[in-house]
Amino acid sequence: MILRIDRLGVELPPPSDPDPQGAQAVQELMGGRFGEMSTLMNYTFQSFNFRNRQGARPFFDLIANIAAEEYGHIELVAAAINTMLTGATPVDDGRAPDNALEHLKDESINPHHFLNGGQGALPQDSRGAPWTGDYVFSSGDLVEDLTHNYFLETGARNGKLRVYEMCSHPAARALTGYLLVRGGVHQVAYARALEKLTGADLTKLFPSPRISTSKIPECQPHIEKGLHRTLYRFSPKDYQEIVAVWNGPHPETGEDLIVEQGPPEGAPWYDLPPQPAVFAPDYAPEEISEIAQRLRKEAGLPDDPLGEVANPGNGLLGKVKDKLT
Amino acid sequence: MILRIDRLGVELPPPSDPDPQGAQAVQELMGGRFGEMSTLMNYTFQSFNFRNRQGARPFFDLIANIAAEEYGHIELVAAAINTMLTGATPVDDGRAPDNALEHLKDESINPHHFLNGGQGALPQDSRGAPWTGDYVFSSGDLVEDLTHNYFLETGARNGKLRVYEMCSHPAARALTGYLLVRGGVHQVAYARALEKLTGADLTKLFPSPRISTSKIPECQPHIEKGLHRTLYRFSPKDYQEIVAVWNGPHPETGEDLIVEQGPPEGAPWYDLPPQPAVFAPDYAPEEISEIAQRLRKEAGLPDDPLGEVANPGNGLLGKVKDKLT
Amino acid sequence: MILRIDRLGVELPPPSDPDPQGAQAVQELMGGRFGEMSTLMNYTFQSFNFRNRQGARPFFDLIANIAAEEYGHIELVAAAINTMLTGATPVDDGRAPDNALEHLKDESINPHHFLNGGQGALPQDSRGAPWTGDYVFSSGDLVEDLTHNYFLETGARNGKLRVYEMCSHPAARALTGYLLVRGGVHQVAYARALEKLTGADLTKLFPSPRISTSKIPECQPHIEKGLHRTLYRFSPKDYQEIVAVWNGPHPETGEDLIVEQGPPEGAPWYDLPPQPAVFAPDYAPEEISEIAQRLRKEAGLPDDPLGEVANPGNGLLGKVKDKLT
Amino acid sequence: MILRIDRLGVELPPPSDPDPQGAQAVQELMGGRFGEMSTLMNYTFQSFNFRNRQGARPFFDLIANIAAEEYGHIELVAAAINTMLTGATPVDDGRAPDNALEHLKDESINPHHFLNGGQGALPQDSRGAPWTGDYVFSSGDLVEDLTHNYFLETGARNGKLRVYEMCSHPAARALTGYLLVRGGVHQVAYARALEKLTGADLTKLFPSPRISTSKIPECQPHIEKGLHRTLYRFSPKDYQEIVAVWNGPHPETGEDLIVEQGPPEGAPWYDLPPQPAVFAPDYAPEEISEIAQRLRKEAGLPDDPLGEVANPGNGLLGKVKDKLT
Amino acid sequence: MILRIDRLGVELPPPSDPDPQGAQAVQELMGGRFGEMSTLMNYTFQSFNFRNRQGARPFFDLIANIAAEEYGHIELVAAAINTMLTGATPVDDGRAPDNALEHLKDESINPHHFLNGGQGALPQDSRGAPWTGDYVFSSGDLVEDLTHNYFLETGARNGKLRVYEMCSHPAARALTGYLLVRGGVHQVAYARALEKLTGADLTKLFPSPRISTSKIPECQPHIEKGLHRTLYRFSPKDYQEIVAVWNGPHPETGEDLIVEQGPPEGAPWYDLPPQPAVFAPDYAPEEISEIAQRLRKEAGLPDDPLGEVANPGNGLLGKVKDKLT
Amino acid sequence: MILRIDRLGVELPPPSDPDPQGAQAVQELMGGRFGEMSTLMNYTFQSFNFRNRQGARPFFDLIANIAAEEYGHIELVAAAINTMLTGATPVDDGRAPDNALEHLKDESINPHHFLNGGQGALPQDSRGAPWTGDYVFSSGDLVEDLTHNYFLETGARNGKLRVYEMCSHPAARALTGYLLVRGGVHQVAYARALEKLTGADLTKLFPSPRISTSKIPECQPHIEKGLHRTLYRFSPKDYQEIVAVWNGPHPETGEDLIVEQGPPEGAPWYDLPPQPAVFAPDYAPEEISEIAQRLRKEAGLPDDPLGEVANPGNGLLGKVKDKLT
Repeated sequence: MILRIDRLGVELPPPSDPDPQGAQAVQELMGGRFGEMSTLMNYTFQSFNFRNRQGARPFFDLIANIAAEEYGHIELVAAAINTMLTGATPVDDGRAPDNALEHLKDESINPHHFLNGGQGALPQDSRGAPWTGDYVFSSGDLVEDLTHNYFLETGARNGKLRVYEMCSHPAARALTGYLLVRGGVHQVAYARALEKLTGADLTKLFPSPRISTSKIPECQPHIEKGLHRTLYRFSPKDYQEIVAVWNGPHPETGEDLIVEQGPPEGAPWYDLPPQPAVFAPDYAPEEISEIAQRLRKEAGLPDDPLGEVANPGNGLLGKVKDKLT
Repeated sequence: MILRIDRLGVELPPPSDPDPQGAQAVQELMGGRFGEMSTLMNYTFQSFNFRNRQGARPFFDLIANIAAEEYGHIELVAAAINTMLTGATPVDDGRAPDNALEHLKDESINPHHFLNGGQGALPQDSRGAPWTGDYVFSSGDLVEDLTHNYFLETGARNGKLRVYEMCSHPAARALTGYLLVRGGVHQVAYARALEKLTGADLTKLFPSPRISTSKIPECQPHIEKGLHRTLYRFSPKDYQEIVAVWNGPHPETGEDLIVEQGPPEGAPWYDLPPQPAVFAPDYAPEEISEIAQRLRKEAGLPDDPLGEVANPGNGLLGKVKDKLT
Repeated sequence: MILRIDRLGVELPPPSDPDPQGAQAVQELMGGRFGEMSTLMNYTFQSFNFRNRQGARPFFDLIANIAAEEYGHIELVAAAINTMLTGATPVDDGRAPDNALEHLKDESINPHHFLNGGQGALPQDSRGAPWTGDYVFSSGDLVEDLTHNYFLETGARNGKLRVYEMCSHPAARALTGYLLVRGGVHQVAYARALEKLTGADLTKLFPSPRISTSKIPECQPHIEKGLHRTLYRFSPKDYQEIVAVWNGPHPETGEDLIVEQGPPEGAPWYDLPPQPAVFAPDYAPEEISEIAQRLRKEAGLPDDPLGEVANPGNGLLGKVKDKLT
Repeated sequence: MILRIDRLGVELPPPSDPDPQGAQAVQELMGGRFGEMSTLMNYTFQSFNFRNRQGARPFFDLIANIAAEEYGHIELVAAAINTMLTGATPVDDGRAPDNALEHLKDESINPHHFLNGGQGALPQDSRGAPWTGDYVFSSGDLVEDLTHNYFLETGARNGKLRVYEMCSHPAARALTGYLLVRGGVHQVAYARALEKLTGADLTKLFPSPRISTSKIPECQPHIEKGLHRTLYRFSPKDYQEIVAVWNGPHPETGEDLIVEQGPPEGAPWYDLPPQPAVFAPDYAPEEISEIAQRLRKEAGLPDDPLGEVANPGNGLLGKVKDKLT
Repeated sequence: MILRIDRLGVELPPPSDPDPQGAQAVQELMGGRFGEMSTLMNYTFQSFNFRNRQGARPFFDLIANIAAEEYGHIELVAAAINTMLTGATPVDDGRAPDNALEHLKDESINPHHFLNGGQGALPQDSRGAPWTGDYVFSSGDLVEDLTHNYFLETGARNGKLRVYEMCSHPAARALTGYLLVRGGVHQVAYARALEKLTGADLTKLFPSPRISTSKIPECQPHIEKGLHRTLYRFSPKDYQEIVAVWNGPHPETGEDLIVEQGPPEGAPWYDLPPQPAVFAPDYAPEEISEIAQRLRKEAGLPDDPLGEVANPGNGLLGKVKDKLT
Repeated sequence: MILRIDRLGVELPPPSDPDPQGAQAVQELMGGRFGEMSTLMNYTFQSFNFRNRQGARPFFDLIANIAAEEYGHIELVAAAINTMLTGATPVDDGRAPDNALEHLKDESINPHHFLNGGQGALPQDSRGAPWTGDYVFSSGDLVEDLTHNYFLETGARNGKLRVYEMCSHPAARALTGYLLVRGGVHQVAYARALEKLTGADLTKLFPSPRISTSKIPECQPHIEKGLHRTLYRFSPKDYQEIVAVWNGPHPETGEDLIVEQGPPEGAPWYDLPPQPAVFAPDYAPEEISEIAQRLRKEAGLPDDPLGEVANPGNGLLGKVKDKLT
């Protein structure tokens, strides 16, 4: 079971200029073979299928716990894509019937972002090909699963670096800067687990690809906070034995690896404004708000929503419009 | 972000007679179009992509919170499949090289359970076809997404009923008995949300398919505990506005719908025994145990694993053997 | 546009012993690369995309008209599959909750026939792989499209012969006996069209595969009626120029090719009995019948249904039961 | 069986400026999960697989009859795509070898429209992903199938509205204007069927998405003719019991629902000019015309083709050229 | 370019008892994600896409040369599957029309082996799912591609071990015995390449899975001949720089790694007998033989075929029959 | 088995202006249904699965030998794509972290060329859809397989002509000019084989599509050398009986068909320069060169690489830069 927290693992910028072409590219980090859906589901299924857990508890805890962090990563990728798509259609008066989507027709976009979805993230890659369960590797053999995971994180790191190079949109850069640091932690974790289990020394494979994370400006703030050597424990009480694997020096910096007993503080989501041209959340969003407010009252809830967002008072709509005009 | 809890939502029985053919069928509830991967990912993406959250908070909270429960459902399906696969190959002395898998060759199984995976669950359906991101519907339009979700739960209910009819293995029955009750809650929740939003009355569509959950013996214990009218809140602090939608009478029984402020107590997993014929977790599992024990000591962990399982002391291996001989 | 006729192109036998394994095989003729979905959709799209129709009217009419016949062929394949699946679960008292599907678990079936569909045909092949739009070839180049169509019919003929050899169920034999004769007509038609267009003589390729249709006992009645040399015109008024291609001697028998100005007389469908274990059409089918009868009365319809079936009075239910007991 | 009529359900405009990017978008209405291939094949298979037809005849007739109309819808989508693609390559002197397709290389097109097909419609969606049989839902359970169909029509309506917004090409607008009205009829029909069967009132879900069809200018002429409340019967003699479901007031306008005993009058296709750069129908189309004319004579056919088109005398070629120059 | 040699890399046994169920399982080694199609195509594309070849020639040569060997491995897998399928239908008098395939209907087979193919190998896995180009990883980054290749060989080794355990048919055992040894060479080669490039020591990962190849009886003859430490050079003149990577001690045995300047001697194929029930190579194979003999004479070829087979004089047909009766 | 030769079948030009959009289009010739992966794998599997080889040796030899040539064709397509992609990112100082890929974001490219691959060819088509094993047809029936092969080559010819029209990049033109001539040979070969086997005369179908290869300027040099009537024998000693099929007059020119006893001389590959922005072969390619040079020395290899390339001395890097600046 999981408990869900309505916060992102790291702060993302508010929407600014829309970048639907960039959003298409960022989808590779969501639904590509090496995207976050893949890291999430690979480790999740491996943890489900782990036999002899008590006998190999530190390794089970490691995989299960990293799986938990990956959920937060698909969330971050989605938030970045949604931010980049915001404003790609008119934000307030862009109601059908009109040609509110026509300017997108000739662009290099994922057409499903507009024709099928509601300007939101999809479990697809940069080609528009759906993520598939055949991307999951769960052989049961622990050494082999860990070898896979190390390789998967390596491929994921490559993908993040390239999306970084293709997309300079602030949301994409904030995303990749963070994911590179956190994915690097997982890459080290699996290498370390293999070493603990077999004695094989993969230290010299780092960094792979051979550009140090420390060279990426957007990674700096996270490195300065030590996130590159910190494994969070994403559980109220469980997965405590990760300390038996995540210890010793970092292969690149030599600093001590440390376990943080809980998730990062993170940051609230921006409440992204409606995009009525695609009926998200409605052709006439204000009607839903009225109904919701009535229901809230009937249920005895306070006037202001109980959920926290980065932009209380919903001033974002105006900001996006300002930006666009 | 999520916090992961190392417990199942409901107690499943320990492994008994293996049933790999049944495990193939149960995969429909995992990776089929109407399986739990689909409910999980549909609601997860809808929650990620929800615009105007503050204006429609009760609906956002509802979808986001049900998404959180669905994670526990893919976990349960996996646990049931793994239980059914346990013992399908020799549990202790079945080490390659030998013909430990030959008796399965002529059976109606999912060959990937043995040739590709490690006698564990896979994100595939009963045909062996992988789950695909194209099963996710996230139109952004709230009424439409809710309509979809109601339909999805209806299809899911049908699938659970049929797997129930095909598989009498205790793990499959415990699984479907529980999922029918919990899926029924979600079916009602989406119908109720649509009613709150539009006034449409879907009450008379229940039950769909037209067999009452109360007729299923394995559902009885859960109904008696009121699980058919309880929406759990799967979060430390968030998603509190679900109470604005989940209220009023249950469409079939007339009882009050209630919100439980936290997850179910659940039950620990069984620590399923190794299946060395498929190298899960190894050709020589005892070697991993020794290494793990050494690592645990070096990290200052106590002798006994900190993780809880349903069968401490790992007596399961013997039980399965007894059963099989 | 089309007008639909509620009759099958040829008479199929009533359900007898169920044969779900055979139904799995027959799916190849539905959703396989060379199945009837493929012939239907290839010719349909080619007719839609035909440029310069007036300048090449006989060829357009030929392709468009054969496309129309293929609709009747997917219908026949579906009817045969449904017939073979009838009785595979209890026909009257097999209502859930019970283990009404358990005897199928270990069988070599398409699990979707029972877990996903309602014991009915699906657009899948014998592996359970879905038919895909990538099977459609519509190059626009007339010579090339006709070359493709000749090849497609050749592959289709091979598939029919092999399904014939694998399935001796009366419905499968009636189906393949008829389709072999009618597919043979289409194979000749495309060869003839190529000859008319280029002068190339494909006559000596017949029969391909090199077993004459006349050797198949189930084809005999149709050959005797001349169906192997008859092209039906499936339209009230259109596609009259097929006579400009479909003429001359049959390449195998030398008999004159003839055009029939209308569809075959065909035969009504059997009204297949409910299969309540899969809720088809309901868990309690009699309730639907009552509602339908009421609606019919309210609409001023007569007591007996206006639609014709092969088994008026619905005596089939009893027959199937007798057969099974 | 079907009889095919060589007319479109509604008049489409002749080709004007080519719009290959728009044609890519319109493909969503053909091969997308909610496109017309899906509505056609879902209802077709549900009608094939309908058990207890006599007992539930009004519902069988409804589904079977709507399936028949959908065939005309894939035809219309194809005609619109083909119209939009006409002129995208030179219409008369654009013969290979040259670089007649080079101007398309950098455009946001479906490359298969030019490299694989002959500037014609394909069973693919706006991403170029093929339609798949896994889009078909045929559970056998009548209430569930109707619930699906209502949802499917809702998704289809959303898609049509968005394609409308993206594509202002006259053919796309004529297409979506008509399909919105007719799809609306089917949406109402399935809601009504559910109501008749269960008593559930879905009336208040309309319109979904929540923009009224009456706001779309291109829908007006059809609404004025009453097409939004008319169910055509697409059969010479069958499916007469649709009157038992399709009756009562329209949920949005309150007008009476009426059944028309036959198909719409419709309109002939334009005979679209050759596109020799993609060899459609040939590198040298005039050669095919000569051969066809000879064959026609030999068969005793009159000089003028028997098939009717919207542009007799084939003056379209010149028109397209004028437009382009 | 390649030159093809009409010999297998190793001797396989002649057909004996047919084992179509086993053939289904062996398909995993052909078209599975870790099958020989994958190793072939991964290394082939990596060699095609290798930039800066002169600067990294030893690594280019290594990958290109192993790619060449993999062609011989898909050939071996095909030969084994074909051997196992031989005799699954009557070998001489099993001509249609009859029910020559009916005994297979209820078996756990790949239906395409009989309904679509001609009792021959297909690029599919054990589920019948086709091999896909998305299995190819060619990142361009040399360290990453080598990491992938090491992982791929590890997964492949696991698959071979499990197929070994499932299939005791002599052809399957001869196949897996050989492939385990040769795949082991490739696994070492990529580990060694990584070590040369980065210094990382993967030696202690061996063997992975953790059962030594030397424990497999069918591997013994090949190990005794030194095949586990031999890299063949599959080229008349090229890829000579493999010696710069393939040197030093074997990680498991400590013996010297050696390069053989040419392919293995190998062995001829068996000329597998016709299977007329599936028309392979024809319904009446003797007719083809007559035609071929005539063509051979006309071309001045000798009476006996120039091609070498393991069973000259075609005595195999009788053998298979004897075995079967 | 194969021996691999490190030369291309024909000379391609060096990289010049990059054309990533064109590279996307050329992928159709690699991974499309009618691309070279398809011709390679169809003939390869047909040769593997050929039964009664000795009895039909000329036909076996023909298919097996053409399969061997096709390997060289996927190699050529890859080389052309790689050439067109060279320079699409900075060739020397374009190292991450920067926005080296941003100019590509809005272009109509295959995003996997940059985000997933290393500016190299992929087994995908022009849509980015992966090649699939379901494109392989290997029915076992010789007449049918040959009919398929003739059709496949016809579709392939169409594709090459259209890619020719879309891409005027020198590499694309050199590629298509050569492939049209060689594919034409295979088209004739299969037609001829069918004629020899059945007597059917397909001569008049040529050329198909109906534009003569002789009209393509880039085909002229190859026609002048007689490549349109030459079948190479791609084997040291085998497949000699192709002479029994490949003889007589060419259907279009009447010239004698001739067999060349060996592969074409071909030409060396260009050693394409690194693309460090995508880490191909590394972020810092010079480091790999240093390591390789050291390994070469240790192995006693000479200073200059033993492999031959079209640009010894690696002057290409400068050339590309000159071209780009």
